[in-house]
Amino acid sequence: MPVIGPRPLSRLLLFSLVPVASWFILRPLLEPLPSIPALYSSIGFSLFAFLATIYLVPALGPTFIKARLSGRDLLKVYDSKIPREETLIPESLGLVCASIYILSLILFIPFAFTKPILEQVNGNKSHQGITVVEFPHYQLSVYLSSLLSLLVATILGFLDDVFDIRWRHKIPIPIIASIPLLMVYYAEHGNTNVVVPIPLRFIFGTLINLGPLYYIYMSLLSTFSTNSINILAGINGSETSQALIIAISVILNDLLYLPWPVGFRIPLHLLGNHTEVEFGGVWSAGMAHGSRELVERHLFSLYFMLPLVAVCLGFLYHNWYPARAFPGDTLCYVTGMAFAVVGIQAHFSKTLLLFFIPQIFNFLLSCPQLFGLVPCPRHRVPRFDGDTNLLYPSTASEVEFPKPPTKLTTIVLNVLALLGLTKLTKDPSTGVITNATNLTILNVFLLRLGPMNERHLVQVLICSQVAGSMLAFFIRYGLAGLVYDGDRR
Amino acid sequence: MPVIGPRPLSRLLLFSLVPVASWFILRPLLEPLPSIPALYSSIGFSLFAFLATIYLVPALGPTFIKARLSGRDLLKVYDSKIPREETLIPESLGLVCASIYILSLILFIPFAFTKPILEQVNGNKSHQGITVVEFPHYQLSVYLSSLLSLLVATILGFLDDVFDIRWRHKIPIPIIASIPLLMVYYAEHGNTNVVVPIPLRFIFGTLINLGPLYYIYMSLLSTFSTNSINILAGINGSETSQALIIAISVILNDLLYLPWPVGFRIPLHLLGNHTEVEFGGVWSAGMAHGSRELVERHLFSLYFMLPLVAVCLGFLYHNWYPARAFPGDTLCYVTGMAFAVVGIQAHFSKTLLLFFIPQIFNFLLSCPQLFGLVPCPRHRVPRFDGDTNLLYPSTASEVEFPKPPTKLTTIVLNVLALLGLTKLTKDPSTGVITNATNLTILNVFLLRLGPMNERHLVQVLICSQVAGSMLAFFIRYGLAGLVYDGDRR
Repeated sequence: MPVIGPRPLSRLLLFSLVPVASWFILRPLLEPLPSIPALYSSIGFSLFAFLATIYLVPALGPTFIKARLSGRDLLKVYDSKIPREETLIPESLGLVCASIYILSLILFIPFAFTKPILEQVNGNKSHQGITVVEFPHYQLSVYLSSLLSLLVATILGFLDDVFDIRWRHKIPIPIIASIPLLMVYYAEHGNTNVVVPIPLRFIFGTLINLGPLYYIYMSLLSTFSTNSINILAGINGSETSQALIIAISVILNDLLYLPWPVGFRIPLHLLGNHTEVEFGGVWSAGMAHGSRELVERHLFSLYFMLPLVAVCLGFLYHNWYPARAFPGDTLCYVTGMAFAVVGIQAHFSKTLLLFFIPQIFNFLLSCPQLFGLVPCPRHRVPRFDGDTNLLYPSTASEVEFPKPPTKLTTIVLNVLALLGLTKLTKDPSTGVITNATNLTILNVFLLRLGPMNERHLVQVLICSQVAGSMLAFFIRYGLAGLVYDGDRR
Repeated sequence: MPVIGPRPLSRLLLFSLVPVASWFILRPLLEPLPSIPALYSSIGFSLFAFLATIYLVPALGPTFIKARLSGRDLLKVYDSKIPREETLIPESLGLVCASIYILSLILFIPFAFTKPILEQVNGNKSHQGITVVEFPHYQLSVYLSSLLSLLVATILGFLDDVFDIRWRHKIPIPIIASIPLLMVYYAEHGNTNVVVPIPLRFIFGTLINLGPLYYIYMSLLSTFSTNSINILAGINGSETSQALIIAISVILNDLLYLPWPVGFRIPLHLLGNHTEVEFGGVWSAGMAHGSRELVERHLFSLYFMLPLVAVCLGFLYHNWYPARAFPGDTLCYVTGMAFAVVGIQAHFSKTLLLFFIPQIFNFLLSCPQLFGLVPCPRHRVPRFDGDTNLLYPSTASEVEFPKPPTKLTTIVLNVLALLGLTKLTKDPSTGVITNATNLTILNVFLLRLGPMNERHLVQVLICSQVAGSMLAFFIRYGLAGLVYDGDRR
């Protein structure tokens, strides 16, 4: 492969998007006031975040290489005549994305939390539906604690990149980042009640107070969302596209709870739900069914997800195959923490976890390797064949297992092989398992669909993530009616 | 100089301080409740922060060296037989201090802001004086925005260390770190009024609303406090000891505003003030004169300064001559931002600036070099002579100025030389200035007091800082009566 320069960027994008973004930011100051003024500013800041990411990532690449935050792409062939330095690709550029993301959230504060806009609208009460002119003021501290957690995640992610922490040590790191969230949740007397599924209510009642367990649940949620994205990595664009699709799924879910200016219906009864869902009209506000609290929560989530989609999209342009920039661990930490933040603060952590179906599958599949049942190499990315330019499933050991597998390992591997999730190599004389493909979703794709090139593999991953989200919506709005009644929170 | 290992640490310190610190943290939960329960927890967390710093700095040193965050001490002689790698000293360890500092502030949140303690005291109202059982709840967002600014300062300081940003580019960096502060100040409708000094009141009245100018003032304050410490650096222990003494001065000032259990008087009339200051008793609360708001503000400041003193003290143990660890820019950024935070949020920025007298002097003295009137080398630290082990004033150019100085430069340098602040080298035939000592306070000490070793020089710096703080107290509580009346805020 020849040396690749940065992807071209047209100035037209800059010149056309800047005025649009500025209009969106300033829209809340113009008459007539829209139903949710701050939402316009959020869209405006997201557009700026997109522009900043797409232009700054290539601009800052050389600085990262100079600071030795760079590496070669292991799944590419390089011309041996080109000196090594010229094939280096900047790493840890997730730091740039995280900085832009957090900065745009900080600059958004006055638009979401100040009075002037509220006062302006006071003479203007003829609106139909909910007019969420201002975020409830007490929520400022919740917002700020979320920002603190995101910043701590950024620092820890970058430290991980600089100091190269071993994976066993870094699993609990997101717990540290969740501390600000937990502390403020406690200081604000956050709700630790959980709605009990209908089949269990005869034991626990409708609501159960988890108390301290709820705090453990919250910190584990951030640990899971961070690490599950991190272990599904290794090919160009994989981390970024996962985060992008999960964020878009969360946004789609949030939109169901907002007051829409137009009325329409979603035929949810086709999915097995009791009723259709109506949108629009005075206070009907979609799935929120008139609950101002639900609208506010999902707005909160939206304000965190819109700029996240923007930076992921901007970064994906440079991270797409063949990648011109690597995200590093910083991106996984920040996106994972952002998902945990909205899941916790907007109280839809169960729905959120449904959007992680591919990650949960990948995590469960990885368990035998993560917990030492099957040997685990440093990198489990698919094996690259330079001649065909295709990826093949990689194996757990380079040649064969250092020692014959235990009984338990043999059983587990045989079951996984039976399910088509791994391919075993056996000693032809004794029948003992001598090797197995690595237990990751990427290797499963290659096993089931045959060898393919890197771009194709990341496309398959994206499709599986989209399919997972569609399944999630089906479970949440179709099947959930079987175990929860309308009183969900 | 032989290779130096980490300074020894006794286990006794650990074993004796841990129970003491734990008692302080848990004190608010024990009866009888003290007047300011959260203050005990703050002291407890500060003790833990001290312990964490003093033990973690040497423990993490090798990790920093491995990540290439290290350097040689330029003001030491090394045995040429010892390989270079063994003489490396870990750099950027201010990151460890900053992390411990911020983590202790985050863990302190529930102690300062939750109800249980308040409820416990409700049946217990027989206290004398102010019982500040709980921080006003609305202040949580102010506290969180301060933490955000400190975290941003940490990230930027560490990025400065990793990417080695040029000094002209890094001057405005603290403005970015002050954005969270400004945004929340705006969203919370912070006070932008300033009390006008008596001699100017006939023009402006008693109070003047600075409006947007106040925000500019706030961001400039953080820029100044950060950079002024940063440019007074270069010898072992200089940054840390400056921060330490300023923080102690702020604490002493805060203590004047707290409700004391014992009554005593400070004979301030000796300093030219109108009245004596009384302490103790019901609601008298020292200089606060019964204002609950003033007490709360100075408690806020105290909560930020106590752990800062703790980490500075812990770090100074390893940073003291001959240094086993360097702070990097991170420490300057975080301490500078911490001072700006308390000055802004607790509304005593003018008093705060008085504690920066040596820094202000050093900054004014540096101006001709900072603004290009006099050549400015990359490092302006004193010149080290390996034979005598003494420091001498360093010169602006290695041999002589690349071109003869302009008229303005000649005048400025001659005036400074007349004041004894620089030593000029002149061409003996033409009388044209060919070189000058660097314009820093450290070089002035060496000029006036003669060459001395590094340890001695940092001691002189510490003495000047202490003298500056004493002068500050004299100006604030003695002379200020001439230009401000009692109605200060």
